[in-house]
Amino acid sequence: MSDLVGDLEVRRLQRFANVYRSSELDKETLADRLRQTDALLISIWPEFLTDERLQSMKRLRFIQGILVGVDHIPFRALAKRVVVCSNAGAYSLEVGEHAFGLLLAAAKRVVDTHNSVARGKTDFKEFRGTADDILVLRGKTLGVVGYGGIGGVVAGLGRSFGMNVVALSRSRRRASESGIGRGVRFVRGRGALASLLSGSDAVVLTLPLTKLTEGVIGAKELSVAKRDAVLVNISRGDIVNQGALYEHLRRNPSFRYATDVWWYKQGRETLVTDYPFTSLPNFVGTPHISGPTAVASGRPVRMAVENTLRYLRGLRPKNVVRRSDYVTAR
Amino acid sequence: MSDLVGDLEVRRLQRFANVYRSSELDKETLADRLRQTDALLISIWPEFLTDERLQSMKRLRFIQGILVGVDHIPFRALAKRVVVCSNAGAYSLEVGEHAFGLLLAAAKRVVDTHNSVARGKTDFKEFRGTADDILVLRGKTLGVVGYGGIGGVVAGLGRSFGMNVVALSRSRRRASESGIGRGVRFVRGRGALASLLSGSDAVVLTLPLTKLTEGVIGAKELSVAKRDAVLVNISRGDIVNQGALYEHLRRNPSFRYATDVWWYKQGRETLVTDYPFTSLPNFVGTPHISGPTAVASGRPVRMAVENTLRYLRGLRPKNVVRRSDYVTAR
Repeated sequence: MSDLVGDLEVRRLQRFANVYRSSELDKETLADRLRQTDALLISIWPEFLTDERLQSMKRLRFIQGILVGVDHIPFRALAKRVVVCSNAGAYSLEVGEHAFGLLLAAAKRVVDTHNSVARGKTDFKEFRGTADDILVLRGKTLGVVGYGGIGGVVAGLGRSFGMNVVALSRSRRRASESGIGRGVRFVRGRGALASLLSGSDAVVLTLPLTKLTEGVIGAKELSVAKRDAVLVNISRGDIVNQGALYEHLRRNPSFRYATDVWWYKQGRETLVTDYPFTSLPNFVGTPHISGPTAVASGRPVRMAVENTLRYLRGLRPKNVVRRSDYVTAR
Repeated sequence: MSDLVGDLEVRRLQRFANVYRSSELDKETLADRLRQTDALLISIWPEFLTDERLQSMKRLRFIQGILVGVDHIPFRALAKRVVVCSNAGAYSLEVGEHAFGLLLAAAKRVVDTHNSVARGKTDFKEFRGTADDILVLRGKTLGVVGYGGIGGVVAGLGRSFGMNVVALSRSRRRASESGIGRGVRFVRGRGALASLLSGSDAVVLTLPLTKLTEGVIGAKELSVAKRDAVLVNISRGDIVNQGALYEHLRRNPSFRYATDVWWYKQGRETLVTDYPFTSLPNFVGTPHISGPTAVASGRPVRMAVENTLRYLRGLRPKNVVRRSDYVTAR
């Protein structure tokens, strides 16, 4: 179990199981306990859980993530009996707000004009053309790609700003759930992504990284987007093709990309990119700070523990991941 | 009349008056026409309208501004018969959105973390403490100082983000108008500003610059604000005491100031400040770009022309400025 789980939550789990924090066990005891482990409650996938080690965990039946993304979990090495649950919804509020912060910062050109002033551009006349590239949200169209908890928050905020909201969701059920999605037009299936991109003034990517979504935004998709659109990525860097994005930003100074998530290298997210994105005025990047804000609220751990308790008490856990989406992913 | 007014609007005005663009007249003709002028339709106060020149304009009865602020108008030199109208409401949407963009950029630490990454801080571990200073808006309190059109937009957006909104307005009527102000708690009178500041996690200044509001946010007011509050200025730089703000930002790294408006020097706003604000990570400044975005929509000119038409047709014009608020201002 992860160190993020506090003593109060541990006591709740102890009513149904023996509970251990991996960091509190010496190497031998850890190996022994893992052989007896039924369920794992993890944050980012721990390095000691190698593929070999997983082979030895014959009793493992359940993995609960504290993060919302499960793309870091080595599905290839997991036996089919193991159920993996994401922590969908636990971060929606904070991450949704952050997405809108990035969207507005790029729409209103906060970062690049601030930096121009800081670098000594202090004549108002030099900023006269700036207004042309400022996106007023009211009456414009917001495309939300992926419509889980975060997508729902982003769509709701878009409606508050008077935007027309279009959402791409593969789940028919989700789109028709009462309450959520009010005032949101849903698109599905073939051609839906291209039509959403070509019709939207701002697009927020909120979908999970799976073998189906990796690199789903490439040169072709960027070419159909509006030339002065704002693209926000709040899910995972690798949803977007890095090289294609760099070329697109370089050639289209009115197009903007704002992200809190960065590309993977050797299976780990890194702030070191293959292209000099931060030298471009139409790139805004925050260092994956939306998630930790949510963790600080205590909600993600609480929700992960709740779901683990459901499993331990023999109830059906929520947010069970569809394995086939991940099997060939990293 | 200002060059901003297009031919279509000019034709509407011509049904009721002889209309001239000052830039299209030679010096002598301009002098002659000004002596015959009943009404002025202006953007920023023109330099040729010196105090002496105003003395010679015996027929002048009406001045309509295209800007929302009228603090640039030399009220001291204006005869009492002259009615001055602001363009209140014409910029509310764009400026309100920009205010929220600044608020979120500062709340989510978009600018300073982006710049840290750009300067080569590329280890996620170095950002571990960042989450503590990220303000999640939902459930927090937003203080809106001044409750005109812009204040109303900002308050509405605050409600959409799930914030408790407190607004300071000197107008009792405004606070009770139907529709606006729903879910907003109004405060008035002595001590109201201090109570708003001490109770708010984010504060947006939207009040006009008058002799009553100049420097109204000084060392004392800053000292009662929450230590990690976000203060947004979307009205005029001189509402805030420059030296006091610099000291406060330097001593309280968790307090943030985000502005689109800058201080006056010799009666003109300038991006050159008396203190090195842009060297502080808790300062965000855009170069007064919210207004031009609105001008680009055509709405401010249209509204200013409408109001001038009201005057020319003998109707009561809207947004008549209370002169006593400005008489000793710059």
